[in-house]
Amino acid sequence: MLSISQYREAFSKYLEAKIKIREPRNLYEPMVYILSQGGKRLRPVLVLLATEIFNTDYRKALDAALAIEIFHNFSLVHDDIMDDAPIRRGKETVHEKWDINTGILSGDAMLINAYQLFENYEGEVFKELARLFTKTAIEVCEGQQYDIDFETREDVSIEEYLKMIEYKTAVLVGASLQMGAIVAGETTECKEAIYQYGRLLGIAFQLQDDYLDAFGDPETFGKQAGGDIIENKKTFLYLKAKESSGKGEAMQLEHLYSIAPGDSSEKIEAVKNIFVASGAAELTRKEIKKYTNEAFQILDKINISEEKKEPLRKFGQLLMEREV
Amino acid sequence: MLSISQYREAFSKYLEAKIKIREPRNLYEPMVYILSQGGKRLRPVLVLLATEIFNTDYRKALDAALAIEIFHNFSLVHDDIMDDAPIRRGKETVHEKWDINTGILSGDAMLINAYQLFENYEGEVFKELARLFTKTAIEVCEGQQYDIDFETREDVSIEEYLKMIEYKTAVLVGASLQMGAIVAGETTECKEAIYQYGRLLGIAFQLQDDYLDAFGDPETFGKQAGGDIIENKKTFLYLKAKESSGKGEAMQLEHLYSIAPGDSSEKIEAVKNIFVASGAAELTRKEIKKYTNEAFQILDKINISEEKKEPLRKFGQLLMEREV
Repeated sequence: MLSISQYREAFSKYLEAKIKIREPRNLYEPMVYILSQGGKRLRPVLVLLATEIFNTDYRKALDAALAIEIFHNFSLVHDDIMDDAPIRRGKETVHEKWDINTGILSGDAMLINAYQLFENYEGEVFKELARLFTKTAIEVCEGQQYDIDFETREDVSIEEYLKMIEYKTAVLVGASLQMGAIVAGETTECKEAIYQYGRLLGIAFQLQDDYLDAFGDPETFGKQAGGDIIENKKTFLYLKAKESSGKGEAMQLEHLYSIAPGDSSEKIEAVKNIFVASGAAELTRKEIKKYTNEAFQILDKINISEEKKEPLRKFGQLLMEREV
Repeated sequence: MLSISQYREAFSKYLEAKIKIREPRNLYEPMVYILSQGGKRLRPVLVLLATEIFNTDYRKALDAALAIEIFHNFSLVHDDIMDDAPIRRGKETVHEKWDINTGILSGDAMLINAYQLFENYEGEVFKELARLFTKTAIEVCEGQQYDIDFETREDVSIEEYLKMIEYKTAVLVGASLQMGAIVAGETTECKEAIYQYGRLLGIAFQLQDDYLDAFGDPETFGKQAGGDIIENKKTFLYLKAKESSGKGEAMQLEHLYSIAPGDSSEKIEAVKNIFVASGAAELTRKEIKKYTNEAFQILDKINISEEKKEPLRKFGQLLMEREV
């Protein structure tokens, strides 16, 4: 088996060879632009890793990995239009560099192109990959819709929030791993277990993202500290703090989430204090731990050798330590 | 076999039963809204008709027909955003009734939903349907991109224009018919022939649309007379007139296509005069006839009984007489 960085390298080479600008240029140039920006290539690496864990050459899974990466970037292009985001990975977003219409149409073509890559698989493998992809893609759309809906809703429950992050983020991690198992022709049990490992780890990862946004070290986290608080984002921390606070504190929190001061440092401090005082910070850490442990328990039970499990476990650990 | 209106009726009932609003409501309500508006249901009817022509119960093809109709409506939702169109079929467009973000995301979900419907077919039929759908969907995106590109290009050739309308419109007609043949398990020859029948008829139909926009009876054509001329749309008529005119007339035409007078009736008359004087009007009629005849010749050769061919021929004739 290769190392994570070797899989990433192999995938990047494959992508470069396969994804080229063609006619009509204005449709495919934005696709090449966003796909060439790099990024962590987390999802395609998971496809390749899972394939090898189940004793199959990762090269068989390169098209499935590419489909997942193209889909992920399609969702970024359309989401960035919806969020009116000017910058992604330090570069102009597609609709900013071109225009909204280009972002819509190039995105559509990317989604269809992702499906096309499954045609390189035979019979049942093709159908299984396409079916999993469709189920996952619909959930990602539904997750994005819930995320939009929650912006204007005051009564979002923690259960609803968890479903939203599961759909928007975690199912694609699970699907990436399961695609490897499908390409390897694994049993239903293995396919299901590896999917659940990814899904649970994906939820843990997103909860940690919420946590680090408030309490992470801005140096290593790589995003603006308190960004979610500035944007009044109803994250797990916020919802848990509201649930765990007395009436006065909850009202204060709601008030803080209704203002947008020029200098937000005081607001951030006040909100973080409530997150800690209410116990929400601690409860969020526990929830992350819970999902991570569940994920590793499922991994323990998968019927492959310890030696094979190790890279997958290490990957999960690295992910939760935020070094990947 | 049923009549066209009976197929339409059967399809509409199926659509109503299958397409319901579900959660998240804001994602699926726009989908139900646009799919419930009716329209001619031209493409799904073609799927059902083709299935029966090849001796197979049309009910087997309802999911493929629904996929085609959902895809067609997905493309309308996204195209209407790109064209900034406020009205479609006499009703507000999706992005006008809701907003652009809703149009983008609901459209995405529709495209994915179309794929999901193919899962109701077994093995090779599933793969064939999905593969044809993907090829067609990519061409439709490319056709839309060419259409956008041509707005700002002065050197569009007639060949390029024909490719644009083929991709944007005609391939989906061909694919609709071919899906019927796939569901019916027909031979490669039959599948190819019926596709070509639809593709050629689709091109003829679009050329006729260009022609009638200028020379049709506004009473029966149902669109604003001269709409393409007002919008300076480089249709087949325009490109042929430029090609067939002397230098003076061509320059006059280009000038007319650079102005936007408050009252456009004089401009429309002047352009139409050039369309006639240059011979472009006559040449366009000939081109329509050429594609229609080619289509019918292919139909003649398909290895099915005359009795089976008749509804398909009649459908083509009705289409070209604009009564459907």
